[in-house]
Amino acid sequence: MNVSVTFDGKLPLVGSNGKKQKTRFDATLDPAAPARYASPMEVVLESVAACSLMDIIMILRKKKIEIGSIRAAVEAERAEEHPRVFTAVRIAYRLQSPDCTAGDFRKAVELSIDKYCSVAAMIRNSGCELSWSAEVSR
Amino acid sequence: MNVSVTFDGKLPLVGSNGKKQKTRFDATLDPAAPARYASPMEVVLESVAACSLMDIIMILRKKKIEIGSIRAAVEAERAEEHPRVFTAVRIAYRLQSPDCTAGDFRKAVELSIDKYCSVAAMIRNSGCELSWSAEVSR
Repeated sequence: MNVSVTFDGKLPLVGSNGKKQKTRFDATLDPAAPARYASPMEVVLESVAACSLMDIIMILRKKKIEIGSIRAAVEAERAEEHPRVFTAVRIAYRLQSPDCTAGDFRKAVELSIDKYCSVAAMIRNSGCELSWSAEVSR
Repeated sequence: MNVSVTFDGKLPLVGSNGKKQKTRFDATLDPAAPARYASPMEVVLESVAACSLMDIIMILRKKKIEIGSIRAAVEAERAEEHPRVFTAVRIAYRLQSPDCTAGDFRKAVELSIDKYCSVAAMIRNSGCELSWSAEVSR
């Protein structure tokens, strides 16, 4: 896998993948120029949820379960000391579906977090506690 | 830190931070709908470079070094087996600057990667090999 990130003298930083699809990263280095995009650590936190959601969507679709929408709310704690790594990450998944049972949804989340999700595995392997909850509404 | 990621029935997934600044994540779940944005793992890889670039920019600015541009090219290998974590990440930093020495630039990269960069620390703590190179041009 190959990507690049460029700084051309001003923020945001622009990430680009092999297909030249862009992702922007920002920060408030200069009080006169407030951030317009998420910070790298916020984006990493979103990536855990995004990575697992891709698995969850595939698993539910394979079971012919209808997905209205899914929202993953992610909360994280960081170490006080540099390099300020994540020490705890909690993901609350909420699925809106006319036909998914709570058990089907829990099973899909579990399969992703415990088996398929690369970002979740790396977060956990780094020593960070990773927990989740799953709710379904009609 | 709080973020969320939403799937409203079709890709891309939309990440949102506390200031409602958006980041998009895509995949090719459906051959008829090619990805328009980077995948979660590509975005994680960009985040390591972005996180360290924020440090590097601050360190060089504190030393009153002029930055024309910086590009970080990132290459990664992944495990064959699920959950397909990154096993090796290499970052090649290239700075264009009229007054930065190779030593100043190496020192800035080193400080970021070894001390400040949260994403680099987590990647390394996960068991992934992390290496880098740094070049300066006028």
